[in-house]
Amino acid sequence: MTAEERHRERMQRKKELVDRKIARATIERGVLVVNTGNGKGKSSSGFGMLARSLGHGFRCGVVQFIKGSFSTGEEAFFRRFDDELAYHVMGEGFTWETQDKARDIAAAQAAWQVAAGMLADPEYDFVLLDELNIALVQQYVQLEQVLTALAARPPNQHVVITGRGAPDGLIDVADTVTEMRVVKHAFQAGIKAQKGIEL
Amino acid sequence: MTAEERHRERMQRKKELVDRKIARATIERGVLVVNTGNGKGKSSSGFGMLARSLGHGFRCGVVQFIKGSFSTGEEAFFRRFDDELAYHVMGEGFTWETQDKARDIAAAQAAWQVAAGMLADPEYDFVLLDELNIALVQQYVQLEQVLTALAARPPNQHVVITGRGAPDGLIDVADTVTEMRVVKHAFQAGIKAQKGIEL
Repeated sequence: MTAEERHRERMQRKKELVDRKIARATIERGVLVVNTGNGKGKSSSGFGMLARSLGHGFRCGVVQFIKGSFSTGEEAFFRRFDDELAYHVMGEGFTWETQDKARDIAAAQAAWQVAAGMLADPEYDFVLLDELNIALVQQYVQLEQVLTALAARPPNQHVVITGRGAPDGLIDVADTVTEMRVVKHAFQAGIKAQKGIEL
Repeated sequence: MTAEERHRERMQRKKELVDRKIARATIERGVLVVNTGNGKGKSSSGFGMLARSLGHGFRCGVVQFIKGSFSTGEEAFFRRFDDELAYHVMGEGFTWETQDKARDIAAAQAAWQVAAGMLADPEYDFVLLDELNIALVQQYVQLEQVLTALAARPPNQHVVITGRGAPDGLIDVADTVTEMRVVKHAFQAGIKAQKGIEL
């Protein structure tokens, strides 16, 4: 048997294995994806799935629970898609920038009301709740509210939730959970946050 | 001191720490980002950064080294941006689907030539080499070729490389590396790959 034939045989066996696994996965329904951990890629992966969803003609919603002081590239980009996409950025953001806890809680709750409206609306095929985990960790939004709304959502609606420190109760009910682990980060080497990468 | 005042003081200290760290990061240049690991989010994060880059008006290039048998949502979506984006999908893809190693190597090399052209061209602000790591692991593209092209690229060009099994030599020269770790995946529970999420 030549090397080329051996390669073909190995690949045929691999293809059979892969095809068998794919054949076993038969359930079709909306999934809950959670991106957590300290590494880069949690939000950008959410925005990549948003692009995929728009590519399929889905009706999409985004709520960003943290607004930096800069206008981010993803906001500038996705604002072009007004017809297919409802994009809500929490007015004031929160955490150490506002230094006002009562205002932070009010802003987080207002953003959560927008999110809850999307989760209750069968018109939305895909909902991205960017940095919601931060609001959950701070207890500005209660986990129970979120779990109840997720459980009651339309069965085919996909939801992506991002942010460090995803609570265990959220991980329990999620379908796909990824921990983004830092191997290294440019910031540690003195490189500023870069447009197109972080901003 | 009221609880509200204590919160403000804590947040002021946090803001000082954050601001000091940000002030120390002063370098501005193109960064090399590598997304690796077995978890979900490597490619979708790359496409999220592509959206950010397009949001900033950057000229962008994408080479996808693995093509599935489906037309992916991100391809359908980003094909709308012909003026700002050069999008190249490797004609035949490779691995177990083709079962023909010589054809796989030729296809990977042809895709690499397109990528190398982008890395040599100062017109490109952002280049995404999706699943290049798979071609490196298979040695269909040589790591040395890639490292040489990356080192010689325009100083402000951002590059994002995705795929499991990123070689150590690539991690060494990267600025930001994330390992996407699987906590769980819907596929393991029998759920098909879903449009907008995986496709």
